[in-house]
Amino acid sequence: MEQHSKALLLSSSNCHGYSMLEFAKGEICDFLKKHDVQELIFIPYAQKGYDGYTKTIKNVIVPWGFTVSGLHTFNDPAEAIKTARAIFIGGGNTFLLLKTLYDNNLVSLIRERVWAGDLAYIGSSAGTNVATKSIHTTNDMPIIYPPSFDAIGIVPFNINPHYIDKPENEKHKGETRDQRIGEYMDMPHASTVLGLREGSILHVNGKSLILKGVAGAVLFKKQVLTQCIISRMF
Amino acid sequence: MEQHSKALLLSSSNCHGYSMLEFAKGEICDFLKKHDVQELIFIPYAQKGYDGYTKTIKNVIVPWGFTVSGLHTFNDPAEAIKTARAIFIGGGNTFLLLKTLYDNNLVSLIRERVWAGDLAYIGSSAGTNVATKSIHTTNDMPIIYPPSFDAIGIVPFNINPHYIDKPENEKHKGETRDQRIGEYMDMPHASTVLGLREGSILHVNGKSLILKGVAGAVLFKKQVLTQCIISRMF
Ligand SMILES: [Ca+2]
Ligand SMILES: [Ca+2]
Repeated sequence: MEQHSKALLLSSSNCHGYSMLEFAKGEICDFLKKHDVQELIFIPYAQKGYDGYTKTIKNVIVPWGFTVSGLHTFNDPAEAIKTARAIFIGGGNTFLLLKTLYDNNLVSLIRERVWAGDLAYIGSSAGTNVATKSIHTTNDMPIIYPPSFDAIGIVPFNINPHYIDKPENEKHKGETRDQRIGEYMDMPHASTVLGLREGSILHVNGKSLILKGVAGAVLFKKQVLTQCIISRMF
Repeated sequence: MEQHSKALLLSSSNCHGYSMLEFAKGEICDFLKKHDVQELIFIPYAQKGYDGYTKTIKNVIVPWGFTVSGLHTFNDPAEAIKTARAIFIGGGNTFLLLKTLYDNNLVSLIRERVWAGDLAYIGSSAGTNVATKSIHTTNDMPIIYPPSFDAIGIVPFNINPHYIDKPENEKHKGETRDQRIGEYMDMPHASTVLGLREGSILHVNGKSLILKGVAGAVLFKKQVLTQCIISRMF
């Protein structure tokens, strides 16, 4: 975590009882206005169908008063990122997303610009996973092999988005989410993990980390959190 | 899939309504007796605590009339595999398991001996994932980075163990299992995926693949299967 990073990390774009991104509308609008951003570049790499995915996001965010362009519509994605003021990386599959970011030489470029305070970052779900130290605590299936699990590193710990801890059903013998995160915590290289419930948002402003949104989070090892300042815990 | 492979691939060791491995007892005993195996080497690499894990498995299998040794108790795991007649690879975390198999130079060694018909293979859960073409359809969290997602390749397709397709709960917005497998099926490198429900067993005997057990499977793309001969579908 560097002094100048500005980021809004959403557990998910969808939250029960809200339309897409609606639970985060106030935070996103405030964040962009505060950083004087009018144009957002959307990175649709976590899904197939970049045009359709970008259109879905535009339909939500343009009515809020911002312009949105898909990164895939620029001839040179790295050049576009070099002059962008703000990006939004959407959810989908974390492995596909991280591999595509590496394939386009964007991982260290985004890191440097965010750390310098020149690029405001909004991520959701997979877009939140790649904002952290590594993707070790994604829930996604490893559908493609990335060159590393190391990610952009805006925060120096891991996040588990869509955090929930209930057995899928009582008869099912697969691991619960807490067991899965526990397997990671047993690794010698494991970092702290913040389990963000759907509807929660981590607001990063330099060294200040504030948990916002409607749902709370769980920190491994392990304190149940509600809306609070969590910087001191890392 | 090679002419001489003999394997029993379990979706899981636990199945609702049965004690550990009980649903597979008849198949495992028949399989080992048919191949004239008295001693089984257990590979506990998918979990921490090799001694405890091996003891748990011994407590189940020794009363069935076989001896069981943990691979970690041999000075040279590769040497032990070179003379073994049968192995059982248990469940846990697929990434940790595959990485440890690579670290011990066992992936190609096991592949060669199984393909030659010299080593009978029993796998469960993560031990089933690593028996397939690759681990792209594991359910596990990527807690450690393996040198490849390519696996032992006893069968030339992928398996999703603990297969289930219900939303975790109706309010949760994470992907369903079918959506996760669908993300993989969208990849250019995707193979066929067999979703093995808990309680189902794939019996591999050369080119013959027979679905056994108590629960059935789903083949993507996608036919609901019960006990049947499925060789012709690949
Ligand atoms: Ca996802
Ligand atoms: Ca597992």
